Amino acid sequence: MIWSGIMPDFAKESLDLHRHLRGKIAIMGKLPITTTDDLSLAYTPGVAAPCEAIAADPKAAYELTIKGNTIAVVSDGSAVLGLGNIGALAAIPVMEGKALLFKQYADLDAWPLCLDTQDVDEIVETVRRIAPVFGGINLEDIAAPRCFEIEARLQDLGIPVFHDDQHGTAIVLLAGMLNAAKITGRKPTDLKVVINGAGAAGTAIASLLRCVDFDPAVCTPVADVVVCDSKGVIHRDREGLSVEKQALLQYTNRDNRSGSLRDVLVDADVFVGVSKGNLLTADDIRLMAPDPIVLAMANPTPEIMPDDARAGGAAIVGTGRSDFPNQVNNVLAFPGIFRGALDAGAAQITPAMKIAAAYALADAVPNPRPDKILPSPLDKTVPPLVAKAVAKAAQA
Amino acid sequence: MIWSGIMPDFAKESLDLHRHLRGKIAIMGKLPITTTDDLSLAYTPGVAAPCEAIAADPKAAYELTIKGNTIAVVSDGSAVLGLGNIGALAAIPVMEGKALLFKQYADLDAWPLCLDTQDVDEIVETVRRIAPVFGGINLEDIAAPRCFEIEARLQDLGIPVFHDDQHGTAIVLLAGMLNAAKITGRKPTDLKVVINGAGAAGTAIASLLRCVDFDPAVCTPVADVVVCDSKGVIHRDREGLSVEKQALLQYTNRDNRSGSLRDVLVDADVFVGVSKGNLLTADDIRLMAPDPIVLAMANPTPEIMPDDARAGGAAIVGTGRSDFPNQVNNVLAFPGIFRGALDAGAAQITPAMKIAAAYALADAVPNPRPDKILPSPLDKTVPPLVAKAVAKAAQA
Repeated sequence: MIWSGIMPDFAKESLDLHRHLRGKIAIMGKLPITTTDDLSLAYTPGVAAPCEAIAADPKAAYELTIKGNTIAVVSDGSAVLGLGNIGALAAIPVMEGKALLFKQYADLDAWPLCLDTQDVDEIVETVRRIAPVFGGINLEDIAAPRCFEIEARLQDLGIPVFHDDQHGTAIVLLAGMLNAAKITGRKPTDLKVVINGAGAAGTAIASLLRCVDFDPAVCTPVADVVVCDSKGVIHRDREGLSVEKQALLQYTNRDNRSGSLRDVLVDADVFVGVSKGNLLTADDIRLMAPDPIVLAMANPTPEIMPDDARAGGAAIVGTGRSDFPNQVNNVLAFPGIFRGALDAGAAQITPAMKIAAAYALADAVPNPRPDKILPSPLDKTVPPLVAKAVAKAAQA
Repeated sequence: MIWSGIMPDFAKESLDLHRHLRGKIAIMGKLPITTTDDLSLAYTPGVAAPCEAIAADPKAAYELTIKGNTIAVVSDGSAVLGLGNIGALAAIPVMEGKALLFKQYADLDAWPLCLDTQDVDEIVETVRRIAPVFGGINLEDIAAPRCFEIEARLQDLGIPVFHDDQHGTAIVLLAGMLNAAKITGRKPTDLKVVINGAGAAGTAIASLLRCVDFDPAVCTPVADVVVCDSKGVIHRDREGLSVEKQALLQYTNRDNRSGSLRDVLVDADVFVGVSKGNLLTADDIRLMAPDPIVLAMANPTPEIMPDDARAGGAAIVGTGRSDFPNQVNNVLAFPGIFRGALDAGAAQITPAMKIAAAYALADAVPNPRPDKILPSPLDKTVPPLVAKAVAKAAQA
């Protein structure tokens, strides 16, 4: 069975491509070994000199080895694309794709590591043990809620650890939202936002919207965020909430509204969908404030198709798809974020760095229009802009 | 302090090279991402097709991903070159060098993993957890005796796990010994061998010498092997022997000789040094059988310098150094061994595959001479010959 969202021809083309390539990345030697001197300098006995230099000063690893330019792309295969818990082996094609994008968008050398465990403690300790060779850790396609704990527990590792499904998505989404607000004449801090989906991405988006000023020292949130899950609105009187959802309530649902997604869509400025396809109709969009912003990112089928959203009055529609305008695609964020973090020698990727990335992305669109709130995911001039902003925020 | 064996200028040149390169390997993308179709085929949504194919049939990972061509070069940094326990970070330059050689000698994509643990259980479980992406595991520079247990416990992993410091050295050494025997008119099975050094390499050499016939079904050993350590000959009446050294006595020291290295050199055909420099003199070589074979592989200073060995009557002298004839260099073995094992889909590297590799290496020298018992480590026609022989042995 092929994923319902892919056209059969397209699935076959991708399978053929993968079968032809047998891996989308390869190792490239940076120097040829053709003479005895080559062998003696790059390997034994000459290699002893850099080894000893690092033994004497561990920081020298950044100058003398791959460490300063490498990222581990780590997954446990538990939440791969929309496919779910397909395991470590089946996750490899995604992690290779990520490594390919790291290279082509930010000249970072990323290596996929798909772990044969889905236990939080084991994932955390494995990442700690493999860390020496890497300058950063990109966590990928790890199911919520364990992704939150894994990322949190690894923040003391000394190198940036970043769960892209959470923050990458949140950053690109915020960038789009900033430009959409500008186009529709709203201030970011005035926005009332409804997020449908309380998994990795939804939680990270709600968290990021606590600081939508460029100046992180000020840190003004959007006017309100209400998060819904499959049972409806997450509110303070709901029973059986997980600790993660209880934590969300510390900074969402200001008025403690309850009910269904439709109930809270009334008068909302922004709908953010990180849930599943075909949930909303044009009538639902008509409940929202005038000129609403609809960012329906379920893949491959959005929560509402762009035509339907516009029929309901949406001023701006974004999705996760490349065949519609305004694609919210993580590749706009993760390469530049890691590039900037590594360039700055940052030990973590802080909220200020994420906000800086979102503003840099928004600013990378010179004249935002309703069908152009984000740069093209193919525009390789964007990651360096993100990297520069992130590095600056890291150094501040 | 720079390793005593490297000339200061050479050490500086290697440091400069490493500082200039900032890593000897990099990732190379195998396809450019320039269009929306590229992105959709290599990443989302198209990548779902190979993911689902692997979820349905795990073996498809070999056809659709990097797995079939990748090696993890895994070290705990506990026995790096002659430098000892310098730790994970300081080991990176060696593991990068290994990855570079895997690429250039066998077109294998190897990635260095330097582990922040030196605990046997933790190393074993970490290798198990990171295994999904890899087609083979090259253990490297892990101290004895833990290297033995780690390698043994990982033999059920389903992919080849091979500690190069043990078997790579042993295979190249056996190849040299086979040609040296031919030149001096001896049958391999008639050789009396003294090994000085009972670490990873010495133990593996003793083990490999149990089968010096090409036909592993016959498996005839050399006439005798006596192993010495820093306390002298390892014999059955010696107290306080480790379990590893006790195990060695199951197939070494046939006559239970005791005493010093010099005592057992008397009438020996072959001296194998995997210990430390400047241990023997020309007079010691004169104790050996006529036309003795001296393979003194301590790095950077051999157990006896070639001129001294020849002065003592050695017919053939090999060392680990590139500036003398007959360099015993692991690069002659490991690339072809893994290439052959992966080509054959082997789950382990068996003794028969190791013997086949040694014979292929010996045969790669068309006309062995006293100063030419092994191919040049720079000869890239050799690894394919080794690979072919290893794959054939795997399939037998």
